[in-house]
This record gives sequence, structure tokens and C-alpha cells, in this order.
Amino acid sequence: MRTTLSRLVFASVLTCRLCLAQSPEPVDDWKPAPSNQAGKQYPMVNSEGRVKFRIMAPKAQSVGVTFRDSSPFTKGEDGAWIGYSRPLDQGFHYYMIQIDGAEVPDPNSRYFFGAGRWGSAVEVPAKDADFYALKNVPHGQLREIHYFAKSANMNRHAFVYTPPDYDKDPNRRYPVLYLQHGGGEDETGWGRQGHAGWILDNLIAEGKAKPFIVAMEYGGNPFAGGPRPTNAPPAAAGATNRTAGGPGGRTFDFSAFERTLLEDFIPYVDANFRTLADQPHRAMAGLSMGGMQTRSITLKHLDKFSHIGVFSGGSIAVTNITDMAAFKEKVKLVFISYGSGELGANRQGGFGGDPRANTTALKEAGVHAVFYESPDTAHEWQSWRRSLREIAPLLFKD
Amino acid sequence: MRTTLSRLVFASVLTCRLCLAQSPEPVDDWKPAPSNQAGKQYPMVNSEGRVKFRIMAPKAQSVGVTFRDSSPFTKGEDGAWIGYSRPLDQGFHYYMIQIDGAEVPDPNSRYFFGAGRWGSAVEVPAKDADFYALKNVPHGQLREIHYFAKSANMNRHAFVYTPPDYDKDPNRRYPVLYLQHGGGEDETGWGRQGHAGWILDNLIAEGKAKPFIVAMEYGGNPFAGGPRPTNAPPAAAGATNRTAGGPGGRTFDFSAFERTLLEDFIPYVDANFRTLADQPHRAMAGLSMGGMQTRSITLKHLDKFSHIGVFSGGSIAVTNITDMAAFKEKVKLVFISYGSGELGANRQGGFGGDPRANTTALKEAGVHAVFYESPDTAHEWQSWRRSLREIAPLLFKD
Repeated sequence: MRTTLSRLVFASVLTCRLCLAQSPEPVDDWKPAPSNQAGKQYPMVNSEGRVKFRIMAPKAQSVGVTFRDSSPFTKGEDGAWIGYSRPLDQGFHYYMIQIDGAEVPDPNSRYFFGAGRWGSAVEVPAKDADFYALKNVPHGQLREIHYFAKSANMNRHAFVYTPPDYDKDPNRRYPVLYLQHGGGEDETGWGRQGHAGWILDNLIAEGKAKPFIVAMEYGGNPFAGGPRPTNAPPAAAGATNRTAGGPGGRTFDFSAFERTLLEDFIPYVDANFRTLADQPHRAMAGLSMGGMQTRSITLKHLDKFSHIGVFSGGSIAVTNITDMAAFKEKVKLVFISYGSGELGANRQGGFGGDPRANTTALKEAGVHAVFYESPDTAHEWQSWRRSLREIAPLLFKD
Repeated sequence: MRTTLSRLVFASVLTCRLCLAQSPEPVDDWKPAPSNQAGKQYPMVNSEGRVKFRIMAPKAQSVGVTFRDSSPFTKGEDGAWIGYSRPLDQGFHYYMIQIDGAEVPDPNSRYFFGAGRWGSAVEVPAKDADFYALKNVPHGQLREIHYFAKSANMNRHAFVYTPPDYDKDPNRRYPVLYLQHGGGEDETGWGRQGHAGWILDNLIAEGKAKPFIVAMEYGGNPFAGGPRPTNAPPAAAGATNRTAGGPGGRTFDFSAFERTLLEDFIPYVDANFRTLADQPHRAMAGLSMGGMQTRSITLKHLDKFSHIGVFSGGSIAVTNITDMAAFKEKVKLVFISYGSGELGANRQGGFGGDPRANTTALKEAGVHAVFYESPDTAHEWQSWRRSLREIAPLLFKD
């Protein structure tokens, strides 16, 4: 009897552990992910947000995927391995495929720069995907530029979004948002997985945002790796100095990027695009590490920036502001956002204090401060796409 | 004795077969390939043009690479597999890594669209790499655009290179080169692996070419796959109708692309960029399939194009021209090129007749016709980069 009980307990623990590791049988409404290479059926995504992978590897001993809590992959008679992720949040997620100990991109997906490397990602279609969809509206241009930065003594690579009407009137000038990626990402992030261009095209077409320029540089990678080579195309071009610190110590040093931004990039953009080149018409925002950079650089240079956006990257407390009267005079917007999944059980989260409470305190001190919580998302691109959608209508309101 | 002889013969045959499959011990002057992801040491390339791969796959049974005549990969104690390619031509080559029957991108390389998919490529540094190097000269912009094409009833995706001074003088207008990729490639090819922008930046800086706009659309893929989805970023956006035929029959049908080019893309470029929108200031060129498209479309529409460039894609014979007087009046340049390795032992090669002889005959008939042979390269990007370098100074000479 005792043995039987033990066995039952053991079996139920086992079952339970399997339960935790895997959802029940996935819903069978699979569709090819929008992030696939043209013509590829896999990976597929279902209405639960689970991803079904198919990897042809006839002689492999084991195949898997880097998403935690994925099902074991099983091999079919055709030599293709099938496996499933857990239900993922709506939006965009980086991953790699594992084949007999090798970690490689999925040959079926398109490739994106994140987690410090070019690799695979899957787009789980979101209920609100319409706001970043490619529509038949007037489109801006995403312009790839190269310029020489004296502060860094190297050729650098960046992207500049110009709004739909930019080339129509050669006398019109535009405000500029400097928009930064996260740690382990690069200057391609906002244009590719962030869909910054389509978000703004759509908002402008609906009359919800004023047209402005968006400038996207490489903010460096304090987490890993040395400086990037100077003489290589897209993601590899435009090296920056490595900044000190890392995820352990959280002692980031953004001074090299700060110099390049202020001494080279902003002057280059002002000289080569029809900008309104003054403080009232210059904003900075960024996600995660880019939010930390935004916070650090704008607070030191309130003479340069009037609008501040920090997405999943901390917040600004009243105590961070040395001269509140001057701050209120110069700063027209403080926008702080987080994904709901980042805020923890007490809906606080963030570092440098509760971001919502900090923002409320700023508001009470008379600052135009806005807090946005992205529902049902975490530290991921869907939170940041929505943050751009939310901040854009608040920028450059004369 | 007979047995010994047999063994000797057998052994020497074996040795000889290994000789054929592998060069002798590679020269030990390896350097990271310029096409690697930032910070990655492998793949490496040596002065013979051999590539040394390193793939971490501790539990794999076999690892290889799609380059023919590569050495077998061997596993080290650290779980990393090392293997070598044969000596490759200078320039750019697509490949994939094989792990236990799976064919996947090399996690160390950057990714490019070719052979019908996003995958790996390696750049073997060329002696003449300087002409497409990123230099500290004034740079043009590579602009990513989206537009709606009525002829195809879909949103399409293209790139437009604007020369360095384009934004300096809002009254200046520029000629346009329509530049097409090869079969299995897409509109990203010329801007990424072709380095079209840096080639033209450098030629313009040296005063060797007039500044002009380059417009790059997706010419379709008659070899494989269906139409691309319409609503997806970079390589997947901008679908086109599949054209009929294939590599077996060589019965290509470029009519869908021809309609989109003439009815939608050229009008869009003329309406949205400061072009000189007439026949004398419009050129078309392409590589391989793009050369075939150029030949086919320009010969049918001499009222639209004045300069014709066909790179590794056939040639134009005197007998292809129905009205030689009209042709000479309208066409200011016929430029035909091939890699030396494509021309065969008799230095002829090509299809539709010997391209050099055809071009000489055109010249003798009074056409401004130029033949270029790229030394020591074959049907590959180094031939086409050089072809762009050679044709650019010949374009739009008033």
C-alpha cells in the first residue's frame, strides 16, 4: 500500500513536472509565422501563441530550441524534427535552434540582430498588430547612412527615417527623435523588428502624430564583445567604443556613445537633413539599455533635448532633478513605459524605484510626465512598439 | 609481387583522389573573413582563398559545408569541428553548414539573400577590394522604400541609392540606373553584397563617374517558390508574380516584372525622386537573370532606355536588332560583361552566341558597344561589382 502511494505520488510529481514544462496538446490552428522567409511554412504559430518548429535533420541525435519550457523535439519518418514552444507573449521573440550541441539560426526564419548576434526570431501575431502593419498609405523612407565620426575616429553606420512628405517641400524642416535600441541589439533594431517606419507612417496617415525625423545610431554593447570592425556593411559597420561594465555590476559607462551622439551624430543629422536644429525640436528615447542612455544623456544635456522617452529602462525620480524650475522650463515631456509583465506582482518593478510612482511624483511636481503600461507583454519588442505608438502623438506639440 | 603492385596502385589512386579533393596543407596565414559577424574569428580566409570553418557541435556525428571539394571536418577535444574549403575565387560566395543532415546558416557569418534563401556567405578578400571599400569620402544614401504597385496589386519593396550631393541642391535632377539582381536573389543584393553604394561613392569622389540615382526592385524568381507575401519586412516584402519557366527549359517569362517596372516602379521613382525623367537619362543593367531581363525589356522599349548593361546574362547580336539606324540613334551604350571563368576554354561562352564576338560585331555596325572580361572570376559577385565599376563611368556622358 505504501509502495503504491509512493508510486502514485512519484507519478503525479512526474506528471506535474511535465505539466509545468509543457502545455496540454496544442490547439491545431497553426499558421506560418509572419517572420518566416518567403515561402517557408515553418515555424508556425497557433492561437495560444505556441510555436511549432520543423527542422530537417535526418541524422541528428537531438534537436531543440532555446525557448525555455519547450517540448522535446521528435523525429518523423521523413527525417524532420517537430517541437513546440510554450505559449509566448504576442509579438517578437529571438531564438536559436539546437542540433546535437550546435546552436544555429533556424534555416526557415528571417534574421535579426539581438542577444549580441544575428539570429532567428519569430513573430507571434498580436491582436493589435494593425498599428505596425504595412498599409497602402504614404510611406516614409528608411535611409541607411555612413558618416565619419571624429570622436570615435571611425566610419559609423546609422539609419534615418524621413516622413512621407519629406521630399515634397524642400523648404520644410522637421523635428528629430533620436531613438535607441537595447543591449545586445544594434541600429537595425527599430527599423526591422521595431517597425518604427510603419508605426509612424500609420500614425501620420491617421493624423495622430506630427511628421518628424527618426535617427537611429549604434549605442554600443556593454554586455559583450569588443568594438565592431569599421569597414563592413550593415550590422558590422559603424563600430563604437565598448563601454565599461556589464550585467553583473550594472556600472554602465555610456560616455563614448554620449560623445559620438552629441559631437558627431546630431551635428551630422542637422547638417544633412532638413531638421529644426534646436532644443525644442529634439527628442531622445530608447528601450532598456537605450532607455538608460536616454535618461543619463538627456538629464546631463537639458539644453539639447526637450522630450524624453524611457521604455523598460528605469524612470526619473523627483530626486534625480537638481533644479526643478529649470527642468520644467526646458522639458516638455517625460514618457516612461514598461510591459505589464516586467512590473512584478505589486505592479511596481523597474530599477531606480517604482516607475509609476516616480512618474506620478513628477506629474505632481508640475512636469508633463506620462506613464504607459503595455498590457500582457514583458521586456520585449511588443512593449516597445506600443511605447513608440504612445509617445509619438505626444512629441513636438507646439 | 603482383599483390604488392596492386596495393601500390590502389594506394596511389587513393592518394590521388584525396589530392583532387583537397589541396595540400593550407597556408597558415588565416584572418577572420570580412563577412563575419562582429567579433567572430571564424570563418577565416588565407592567402590561397581557402576558408577555414569552425563549428561548435559537441554531439554531432558529422559536420560539413556546401562548398564542393571541401575537406572533411574533424572534431577537436573542445567539441568544435574544423574544416577547409578548396581555394575559392576572390570575392563573395554563398554557403550553408551541414550538421548531421541539417543544412543551416553558419552562426558566425552575416546573412545575405541568394540561392533563394537568407543564408551564409563568405568574402574572400580581393586584391582589388579597394574600389568597393567603405572610405572616408562623401556617401550617398541607400533608401528603403515601400510603394503600392497597381499592376501587381500589392505593396512592393525596393531600394534607391541617392548620390552624395543629392540633398544639397533641391533643384538639381539626376539620371537613373535601374539595376537588377540575379535569379534566386532579391532587391537587397546590389546594396549589400554588391556594395553598389560604396562603388559609386568612390567613383564619384574620384571624379570618374557622374552622380546618378540607382533604383533596385525585386525582379522575381523564375527558378523556385511562389509569390512572396506582401506584408512582411525587407526581403519578404514586395512580392512579385512568379514568372514561368525554369533552369531546364530556359523559357523565362518576365512580363509581370516588365509591367511593374514600366507601369509602377519607374513612374514612382520619377514622381518621388528628382530624376531626369526621359530616355536619354535612363539606363538599365542587371546580372545573370537580371541581365536577361535588361536585354529583353530594353530591346522592346528603346523609347525608355538609352544605356544597356548585361552582366553574365547573354549579349546582343546584330541580328537581334530589327532597325539598326533607329537603334544607333536611341542607344548610347551597350555594355556586355562576363567573368573570365564563364567564357570557357575558347574564351567564348555565354548563351545566344559568343558575347565578345557579338559585341565586336555591334561595334563594327556603329553601336557604342563595350565588352568587359573580369579577370580570374566566374559567375559571381566579384565579376558584377567590377562590371558596375566599369559601366558607371560610361553612363550618361552628354
